[in-house]
Amino acid sequence: MAVETMQAVVKTAAQPGAAVVTRQTPRPGPGQVLIRVLAASICGTDHHVYAWDDWAAHRVRPPVTMGHECAGEVVELGSGAGGVQVGDLVSVETHVTCGVCYPCRTGQEHICEKVSILGVDQDGAFADYLVVPAKNAWVNAKGTDPALAAIQEPFGNAVHTALATPLIGRRVAVIGVGPIGLMATAIARAAGAEQVVAVDLSAYRLEMAQRMGADAVVDASREDSTEALRRLTKSRGLDVVLEMSGSERALDQALAACANGATVALLGLPPAPIRIDLGNRVIMKGITLLGITGRRMFETWYRGQALQASGRVDLTPLITHRLPLTEVAQAMDLLASGDAAKIVLIPGGV
Amino acid sequence: MAVETMQAVVKTAAQPGAAVVTRQTPRPGPGQVLIRVLAASICGTDHHVYAWDDWAAHRVRPPVTMGHECAGEVVELGSGAGGVQVGDLVSVETHVTCGVCYPCRTGQEHICEKVSILGVDQDGAFADYLVVPAKNAWVNAKGTDPALAAIQEPFGNAVHTALATPLIGRRVAVIGVGPIGLMATAIARAAGAEQVVAVDLSAYRLEMAQRMGADAVVDASREDSTEALRRLTKSRGLDVVLEMSGSERALDQALAACANGATVALLGLPPAPIRIDLGNRVIMKGITLLGITGRRMFETWYRGQALQASGRVDLTPLITHRLPLTEVAQAMDLLASGDAAKIVLIPGGV
Amino acid sequence: MAVETMQAVVKTAAQPGAAVVTRQTPRPGPGQVLIRVLAASICGTDHHVYAWDDWAAHRVRPPVTMGHECAGEVVELGSGAGGVQVGDLVSVETHVTCGVCYPCRTGQEHICEKVSILGVDQDGAFADYLVVPAKNAWVNAKGTDPALAAIQEPFGNAVHTALATPLIGRRVAVIGVGPIGLMATAIARAAGAEQVVAVDLSAYRLEMAQRMGADAVVDASREDSTEALRRLTKSRGLDVVLEMSGSERALDQALAACANGATVALLGLPPAPIRIDLGNRVIMKGITLLGITGRRMFETWYRGQALQASGRVDLTPLITHRLPLTEVAQAMDLLASGDAAKIVLIPGGV
Amino acid sequence: MAVETMQAVVKTAAQPGAAVVTRQTPRPGPGQVLIRVLAASICGTDHHVYAWDDWAAHRVRPPVTMGHECAGEVVELGSGAGGVQVGDLVSVETHVTCGVCYPCRTGQEHICEKVSILGVDQDGAFADYLVVPAKNAWVNAKGTDPALAAIQEPFGNAVHTALATPLIGRRVAVIGVGPIGLMATAIARAAGAEQVVAVDLSAYRLEMAQRMGADAVVDASREDSTEALRRLTKSRGLDVVLEMSGSERALDQALAACANGATVALLGLPPAPIRIDLGNRVIMKGITLLGITGRRMFETWYRGQALQASGRVDLTPLITHRLPLTEVAQAMDLLASGDAAKIVLIPGGV
Repeated sequence: MAVETMQAVVKTAAQPGAAVVTRQTPRPGPGQVLIRVLAASICGTDHHVYAWDDWAAHRVRPPVTMGHECAGEVVELGSGAGGVQVGDLVSVETHVTCGVCYPCRTGQEHICEKVSILGVDQDGAFADYLVVPAKNAWVNAKGTDPALAAIQEPFGNAVHTALATPLIGRRVAVIGVGPIGLMATAIARAAGAEQVVAVDLSAYRLEMAQRMGADAVVDASREDSTEALRRLTKSRGLDVVLEMSGSERALDQALAACANGATVALLGLPPAPIRIDLGNRVIMKGITLLGITGRRMFETWYRGQALQASGRVDLTPLITHRLPLTEVAQAMDLLASGDAAKIVLIPGGV
Repeated sequence: MAVETMQAVVKTAAQPGAAVVTRQTPRPGPGQVLIRVLAASICGTDHHVYAWDDWAAHRVRPPVTMGHECAGEVVELGSGAGGVQVGDLVSVETHVTCGVCYPCRTGQEHICEKVSILGVDQDGAFADYLVVPAKNAWVNAKGTDPALAAIQEPFGNAVHTALATPLIGRRVAVIGVGPIGLMATAIARAAGAEQVVAVDLSAYRLEMAQRMGADAVVDASREDSTEALRRLTKSRGLDVVLEMSGSERALDQALAACANGATVALLGLPPAPIRIDLGNRVIMKGITLLGITGRRMFETWYRGQALQASGRVDLTPLITHRLPLTEVAQAMDLLASGDAAKIVLIPGGV
Repeated sequence: MAVETMQAVVKTAAQPGAAVVTRQTPRPGPGQVLIRVLAASICGTDHHVYAWDDWAAHRVRPPVTMGHECAGEVVELGSGAGGVQVGDLVSVETHVTCGVCYPCRTGQEHICEKVSILGVDQDGAFADYLVVPAKNAWVNAKGTDPALAAIQEPFGNAVHTALATPLIGRRVAVIGVGPIGLMATAIARAAGAEQVVAVDLSAYRLEMAQRMGADAVVDASREDSTEALRRLTKSRGLDVVLEMSGSERALDQALAACANGATVALLGLPPAPIRIDLGNRVIMKGITLLGITGRRMFETWYRGQALQASGRVDLTPLITHRLPLTEVAQAMDLLASGDAAKIVLIPGGV
Repeated sequence: MAVETMQAVVKTAAQPGAAVVTRQTPRPGPGQVLIRVLAASICGTDHHVYAWDDWAAHRVRPPVTMGHECAGEVVELGSGAGGVQVGDLVSVETHVTCGVCYPCRTGQEHICEKVSILGVDQDGAFADYLVVPAKNAWVNAKGTDPALAAIQEPFGNAVHTALATPLIGRRVAVIGVGPIGLMATAIARAAGAEQVVAVDLSAYRLEMAQRMGADAVVDASREDSTEALRRLTKSRGLDVVLEMSGSERALDQALAACANGATVALLGLPPAPIRIDLGNRVIMKGITLLGITGRRMFETWYRGQALQASGRVDLTPLITHRLPLTEVAQAMDLLASGDAAKIVLIPGGV
């Protein structure tokens, strides 16, 4: 049974920062479960909310408990909640979907027309407890490290993007190797890609990409990435691009390095509309661009689980830091510095 | 047997215009066929070459005989030329491909890395005679109207675009109903689309779109097309967009009217890089963008033939004008006026 | 509000026949709805249960109310039942799925590992009232003929089968034109197939197939169907087969008439294992066989609705008979005679 | 330049066996190349021809030089032969296609309607020299072991089968691990399958399967394979079956072990029509059966090359024996014994 009150990291006002406050522990309604949070990792989106940028200012309505990537123990079931049991160690699918719109009724809940996101549109995971619909709880094997269970949600983004087109025997570039790009690098390698090339501006990240399985890396701060990709693919060009940067320049350079007929899976969100040479770079080359968001429910989760349980992908090197939940400010600074992959907050302390 | 000399419309110098000149009749080399041109239709690309815009100035090297959409009678076979016989009435696939690059060897000749286009990169079809590889000659049924046979090539663009994603039971918009958009309208209707909406700025074209099977039309010069498309689809949004305009604004408005998960097939070439709200309009909505170019060889031709032979699609209303080859200047003016669908030049005179 | 008792057609014992009995009106549990049945059509499966063949004897556990294809008015909502309202005219998806197995959680509920079927595994629709999960109720437009609404379920089988592979510009044969085959014939025609050929042994059915849009018909009781299909396709062979007969001989003949690379969608259930020349007819020809069951939830329903609302498909000619619910015995005899398409039972009388 | 006469293994009469005879060295016609054979491996089909079974008696017309899997040096180009040069070390695509039928003109040459197979329908590779169309010659990297180059053709069968459906994160069984099954095992492992299970009756083959990357093996001569596959997949069933055995019983058992919605790629040719429980095993489960033949030209070759050049797949353990061409009889006995993977004949002697 959960205690009456809990600690939570709350965006209390429409301004930068967040407060660690005491809140009433939520109760699960019909079809919901109460989860005692054991680990919650930080995502770029959390930093947008924390720093209160334009996007956050337009989307978030304080007060709201921050955070979405998490894992914990199920401690209470609401009426009619099925598919999960008290005591289960669960990861959380952070998109709460309506269940009745066209995408939801056709196996495409990841593009629900009325999605509500934890830590953005409703109270999230940077807290001792969290309530979510039972169907959003993904049961992990007993004994899984909660930190590893927490990062299954961003891993799902990587799986969704990487598996959007066949990679086996293809020349693949991952553009932007933040945590999700690093995960995608490992997946592409596990998928039997002929070649996995990571492109980024950060030496720290590129070094990690090599550790995660990149066959080659390109430091776009030091050389022209189109030229480098052409050289690395022996002038044949890329078959697949996994775009994780959201950068206009990086996308243009990647498109220029694509072979005719290539597929570009787009996950990275540009902060504003960007310029694309659609005629020469996309249409004349017969390129396919795939907009990717969220995780296929729950196709993506099954595939991600399979990749890890079989040992084809190992995410543990990506958990670079663990901090107590109360040190969220330090965690945000660390994230901003760029010298971290996944930072995990531990509600009870490390 | 062909005569020694012939008349041809030639871009003789790097400047606007074209000359009707007498040229030596070409001879078919190994694997080629000589075609007596019976009809040649005019494409927007021909007008670019004629008007000598930036694109043309960078691509075309005069002197070159203009034109690519055509049909005619095979009059001579080069050595080893197969699959076609003297006397056949053939349409011409205007992309001459290398046959040995990766796309060519994997069933994707339409994105050949070394394609040479008739009337642009090599002598074309606005002439009494034309030489092409035998494999580029598509045999039509005896008795086919040569004008109809000539417009099979742009029809192939429409077929390629419209069949890139299933249309049956889907809400489809065709953005830009020039000749290829009009053809795509007819195909979408034949394909069992739930709804086919044509969007354009020209009343003439929208009227033709209705004739070709559009369930509704939107005059984007008079109303906001996003709003109109939302209203026409009862707020559900579009499932499929066939983009034929190449316009930044039109594409943005169509994307805004898309339902989550929609597919946008892009054929219209923007004259320059364009701005796209990739984050909100594509990625967050899970949209797929398909760059389409040329015609699948020869999948597209087989499908197009089937659509017409079965009577599902009738292109004859689109042949609005027939002029003698020598009146190419008048034809270009007519095209520029916008009050024409397909204009067909007849070498021997109408 | 529903009355206390109701009339129902019940398989009361493990033997041929069924009894019209008075039963207690069911009450909707959590997430369920109570429907007042306005029309219920008869399916071949109902006849199997009625006649008590081997399959029925192994699967059905009396007593059970028969019937599954139906439409009616929602009269009561169980707790938490959403997406539907009292007064709605609904059709019923007859597969009650578990919601937690792998297929259910990955957008493939139609192949749920623990499916329970109305009228077979649980009480069905040949009754004044019926209880189903709210998510199984598909809301129709006000004013829809309940008989038409009732046959949406078998229409869904036809839509699922016909849309399993692209038909536009393809040569398609429908093998077996019972009601679902007739529906598939209409869909194939609406889908822009180059040619739709119906094959059956019954002159009555073949005549109806022509009415539903078949371009040609083959009476396999009077000529070799392989030969006929080859002749009708001008020796090119079939691109697509929609197999609705479950007959070993019919399937073999259809496979023999397939072009290399064809797709065969299999819906008809053979009563026992059948012999197939897998080597020559499937493997060497690069044929794809698709096992089809149920309806995609609810992709199939959306597509079917679109086809009808747009007027591309009209099912009304298929409703050949309407009888009072109490005349179920006569209806079964009529079905067995073969001289009927869809027979609809009306609980309150015709 | 090639010498006037050469040695060849020829099926001289319609009876078992083959003779090593002296034949005139062939000359390359237009578009053809002459290859000096450096290595030729033996396939089960060769044994059918050698042993003169029913299939061979109906298909092969003696005299014909046997053999198709081979590699060699290009020594002469016929007129117009392109894409390859004298001195190149080439593997041979053994399906000689017509180039003008519907499959050939739509990127599906592997199912050409008029295919002629080397060593079956025309003179083959068990000889000092061989003539093939230039487009059938696949250029390898300099220094490739000719024996390895020779087995690229059966490897292509494995690649075509294994890549017919996504394997990443799926539970895969390879049924029948002769040479092609062993290759498919290695590919499935490289493709990131969650689990690769090999099923066979031979301990020798199962031991090799483990060496090639199988996670588990099932000896179907010692245990029920359905039960074993269910147990190994923890009751979830198989996602994908790669069927290489052509055995009725093995296919039935594999289908019974499939999860709903599974895909079964069929390459193994049953010697006669077989019985399949299409209703329960395929239709009700929503299974897809893919008939696979030959190699996609040349998509399959590109993918196979990529898998090896990148080191994801290593075929060298499969070359278990090398014999002089003249010892073809011993080689056939060895093949029949089952204690060999690939046996390679060397024209000049080992």
